[in-house]
Amino acid sequence: MAESWSSLDTAECNFRPLVVIELAKGTKEETIEWFTKRVVDKKTDGGAQLLIKPLVTENGHENIYLVGASHLRLLLGAETVGLVKECNDNSMRTFTYSSRKTFKDFADDNHSFLTMAECQYIIKHELENLRARNEKMIPGYPQAKLYPGKSIVRRLLTNGILVQIFPLHDREELKKLSHSWYGRVKVGYQPLDDIRCYFGETIALYFGFLEYFTFALIPMAVIGIPYYVFAWEDYDKYVMFATFNLLWSTVILEVWKRICAILTYRWGTLLMKRQFEEPRPGFHGVLGINPVTGREEPVYSSIKRQLRIYLVSLPFVCLCLYFSLYVMMIYFDLEQWALDYHKENESNFSSLVLYVPSIIYAVVIEIMNRIYRYAAEFLTSWENHRLESSYQNHLILKVLVFNFLNCFASLFYIAFVLFDMKLLRQSLATLLITSQILNQFAESLLPYWLQKRHNKRMKKRESSQKTDADLSLAEQVNMEKEMGTYLGTFDDYLELFLQFGYVSLFSCVYPLAAVFAVLNNITEIYSDALKMCRVYKRPFAEPTANIGVWQLAFETMSVISVVTNCILIGMSPQVDALFPDSRMDLVLTVALVEHLLLAVKFIMAFVIPDKPRDIQLKLDKLEFESLEALKQQQMKLAAESLKE
Amino acid sequence: MAESWSSLDTAECNFRPLVVIELAKGTKEETIEWFTKRVVDKKTDGGAQLLIKPLVTENGHENIYLVGASHLRLLLGAETVGLVKECNDNSMRTFTYSSRKTFKDFADDNHSFLTMAECQYIIKHELENLRARNEKMIPGYPQAKLYPGKSIVRRLLTNGILVQIFPLHDREELKKLSHSWYGRVKVGYQPLDDIRCYFGETIALYFGFLEYFTFALIPMAVIGIPYYVFAWEDYDKYVMFATFNLLWSTVILEVWKRICAILTYRWGTLLMKRQFEEPRPGFHGVLGINPVTGREEPVYSSIKRQLRIYLVSLPFVCLCLYFSLYVMMIYFDLEQWALDYHKENESNFSSLVLYVPSIIYAVVIEIMNRIYRYAAEFLTSWENHRLESSYQNHLILKVLVFNFLNCFASLFYIAFVLFDMKLLRQSLATLLITSQILNQFAESLLPYWLQKRHNKRMKKRESSQKTDADLSLAEQVNMEKEMGTYLGTFDDYLELFLQFGYVSLFSCVYPLAAVFAVLNNITEIYSDALKMCRVYKRPFAEPTANIGVWQLAFETMSVISVVTNCILIGMSPQVDALFPDSRMDLVLTVALVEHLLLAVKFIMAFVIPDKPRDIQLKLDKLEFESLEALKQQQMKLAAESLKE
Repeated sequence: MAESWSSLDTAECNFRPLVVIELAKGTKEETIEWFTKRVVDKKTDGGAQLLIKPLVTENGHENIYLVGASHLRLLLGAETVGLVKECNDNSMRTFTYSSRKTFKDFADDNHSFLTMAECQYIIKHELENLRARNEKMIPGYPQAKLYPGKSIVRRLLTNGILVQIFPLHDREELKKLSHSWYGRVKVGYQPLDDIRCYFGETIALYFGFLEYFTFALIPMAVIGIPYYVFAWEDYDKYVMFATFNLLWSTVILEVWKRICAILTYRWGTLLMKRQFEEPRPGFHGVLGINPVTGREEPVYSSIKRQLRIYLVSLPFVCLCLYFSLYVMMIYFDLEQWALDYHKENESNFSSLVLYVPSIIYAVVIEIMNRIYRYAAEFLTSWENHRLESSYQNHLILKVLVFNFLNCFASLFYIAFVLFDMKLLRQSLATLLITSQILNQFAESLLPYWLQKRHNKRMKKRESSQKTDADLSLAEQVNMEKEMGTYLGTFDDYLELFLQFGYVSLFSCVYPLAAVFAVLNNITEIYSDALKMCRVYKRPFAEPTANIGVWQLAFETMSVISVVTNCILIGMSPQVDALFPDSRMDLVLTVALVEHLLLAVKFIMAFVIPDKPRDIQLKLDKLEFESLEALKQQQMKLAAESLKE
Repeated sequence: MAESWSSLDTAECNFRPLVVIELAKGTKEETIEWFTKRVVDKKTDGGAQLLIKPLVTENGHENIYLVGASHLRLLLGAETVGLVKECNDNSMRTFTYSSRKTFKDFADDNHSFLTMAECQYIIKHELENLRARNEKMIPGYPQAKLYPGKSIVRRLLTNGILVQIFPLHDREELKKLSHSWYGRVKVGYQPLDDIRCYFGETIALYFGFLEYFTFALIPMAVIGIPYYVFAWEDYDKYVMFATFNLLWSTVILEVWKRICAILTYRWGTLLMKRQFEEPRPGFHGVLGINPVTGREEPVYSSIKRQLRIYLVSLPFVCLCLYFSLYVMMIYFDLEQWALDYHKENESNFSSLVLYVPSIIYAVVIEIMNRIYRYAAEFLTSWENHRLESSYQNHLILKVLVFNFLNCFASLFYIAFVLFDMKLLRQSLATLLITSQILNQFAESLLPYWLQKRHNKRMKKRESSQKTDADLSLAEQVNMEKEMGTYLGTFDDYLELFLQFGYVSLFSCVYPLAAVFAVLNNITEIYSDALKMCRVYKRPFAEPTANIGVWQLAFETMSVISVVTNCILIGMSPQVDALFPDSRMDLVLTVALVEHLLLAVKFIMAFVIPDKPRDIQLKLDKLEFESLEALKQQQMKLAAESLKE
């Protein structure tokens, strides 16, 4: 047994390339030698104990390396990263090598016990945790300083010696997945478990949320249709619709937490312990002692960071928001001017002029969005967050606020300053539909065209089928390394977030929004799937237990929508007519209803448990077992001590 | 060494009585024999391995037993309950017997390493975890069924065989504590650490909160005084005061969380793992398998419980609330009638009649409160909660809502229906001051009188100083077992909660409320301390990491107070005068300000971290260390496996 392990460990024939490392052209030989040695070195010698192999292509050596690991190494790595897997008794447990036999589908020769995405995640984790020992710098690059405990790969990345690390696609699996996912037109759920096996939990959870959200919108859409068809304008019907919408949006967000718990329990990430987070690559500071780890690493004063956030970033964001509002006011002036112009000289030209302000505004907003995005990234980077998660949260918050304002400020202005419900409905429809069409174009038609091109290239390659298996791997690597990098689920969630805003903020004015959202999301699933499978490099799997800050963002939006909807209903002429004597009573009634609705929302959020009962029971059971195990251990000790 | 342990284990001379068990008069001999044997039995034989001794008094044997434990047994028990103690390197760690040498102040002969309260808590825990093995019933009581794993002490309690268990006072310590706590009039903080050592964390945290809350009210009181002295009635001053109050109340509640974290970190309870909770004594159901523990125990359908809560308890509570409102309306009618009567026949008698409605109402409210309290306890008990914590939460919620309505409904009515600000201020002052005087009487004068009597009795005893030490212990036990039982911090927190309501809900109408609250709380500290030390039995220590549901209750109150204060300011004639043209604008402005304040509140609660940075760092460090330890273990394993 032990024999076969050690032979597996080094056997080249069993080498399965999992991760690609691209070094910069012209990297010094001594650096490469040192780095590959560190990757291969035994754990006891401070190495990562992985396998690494240069990729040999027709053009010879290109500084591209393939990284793999023995089956045993991966299992031990799975224990290190704390993977949670299903046991034979259907419970989920943290995988340990010593208890491996108790896990479902485990066999020493079953190499599919760990999914490929998990293997790649393990390798990434091991590479990132390859730490400097006594090296003061990267050999060959005296400017790339090292200190004991510094992650070597992170230093190589920040110094540009390491260009990129990415996991390889598995073309067989990808084909199967894409067929069951979007290959055929069918009614049914997405293969979320397969997506998770291939792309990891973060992406699977996004698609899970997208699908869930689409289903959740259907009732709103169904109820919204008759309003359009029969052109209902009665006050009571609108109130009913809005009330339903508000409570419904609370319910769906609460229920999502439960579904999310079910999914991530099944995937094991709900139970996964939070790993200690390393400083993010861009983090810099004076070398000091980290108070948590006791390791030497750059330290940056948290007070300085707070000052940067509150004295620079916050005012900057406020200024940008103000500027954005200012631009919006100019747009409304232009609009008015165009209308006046059209009225004065009614001609074909003048009716064209009518569209000019909208077009200019759309272009300006797009430009502002892009500039702001850069500024936000720069600022958040400058704030010098130690953790990637903290960086992401601050970036998301900045971008979210700005996008929210850009998308909805004009609608708020129309609704609550101009009091023009017809214009509101019209603008809402225009904004919603054009943004959806634009997004679909950028996300669906573009990828489709790319796939066509890709297919053609594939066909070309297949015609020269004589190339051996290894060359085909080289081709695959070369092709994949040129593909774009998927930058995370941020933009996808943002799109959904804004859509949720269009649907819920003014739902009582434009009930049809939900219908468009549902239609859009159905194609969105397909286009996003295509994008993941065909357009981008395979991303590393990221274990996650929830959708994080987005849950909060959606919940905030649903609170804001209570306020907007109550005001809209209060302003409608039908409701106005109910209080002929006093507009005071109207306003007070609206305020009362709004507060009641908010109270009901909070109570509902409080009362609905975040985890379904059976998941909670399973979690309790696990906790109880670990407590009992501890107690047993102590009982033994106690018995021994007292026996003496 | 081992010798000395085992001699300590049984040495009668070292027996230190910690906990008193009182069995019912006439308990069968065989039951007593079986029970004491189980208490003394070795852990390996399923016993608790404690020491138990009957209390011999002048009247002979009275079914009162003293329980103690050897020093070693207590240390092992400390590990079982998961006590967290300070180490030599000033970090807090979970105590384990094997690592005992690393803890501060630990020495094998230092018996004060564990405080007496901790020892008593450990003994209580061990007694409650003394479980039936194969016994089908309690010997001598065939109706008291047992099943494997059932807590014996709980069964004895529910069957009335065991009358009570309580921890003994330590008169030396108590004297020292009461001297430093309330013995002398001084300006300074309470000895919270000593209180915690003597009474445990729950009670120390209550006194910590009471003290903190009093200090937090001082700024409000200081700002409130000039309003009274100079009779300020300007609108802008009121707005300033109310705005300050609202933000201040958010800040103090957030800062309390931080202070609470500092305290409970120092006491070790912040790090204590949640223990698995046993079913509460009153819980009943069909014998089944607990899905979490796999043990046989009564099981009760959670759906049935939900039905009972939502179909019976909820409607009942609503009915009670309605009834309470109805009674309030009758009171206002009576009040009106008395006023009319007084106007018609102005005489001494008629001016006395003026007080009648208030008196009747106060009495009726008191009666209703008591009846409702019984009903709530009955209903919550009938809901059959499995856990004591869940029972407590449901009971607190029921009582809280009712008390809130009883206290504040009349004020709300006066403020928002009658619009009578003068009457509001008058009622607020009357309610606040009378409730404080009544409470002070019940909590301070009564205990003072009791203490006087107690002192007299003490003096009598001391004059007959010839009694030996053992008899004095017997006397102490006999005296303490007759003392009242402290029923927990519920009523004390409720009092503070209602006081917070008086101070914050209508703060802009009656700024002097904070002054009265501060004055009351200063005496409250003394009277509560007296109550704990002199009036009640010593309670068992309860480790806790926060004030639990009360934090939520106070936060909810501070949200409600934003709404009420905004409305009050909006209704004030000064503000009214600012919007001479349109009351609409006034209402809209008020609504806008209210929403902004609420938003600021939520953002502040979100931005202020719940734990101070240094505590958070310490927690992170602990987590990191445990992760590292795990990794080291795995590395070793990996090295071994790969070496083979």
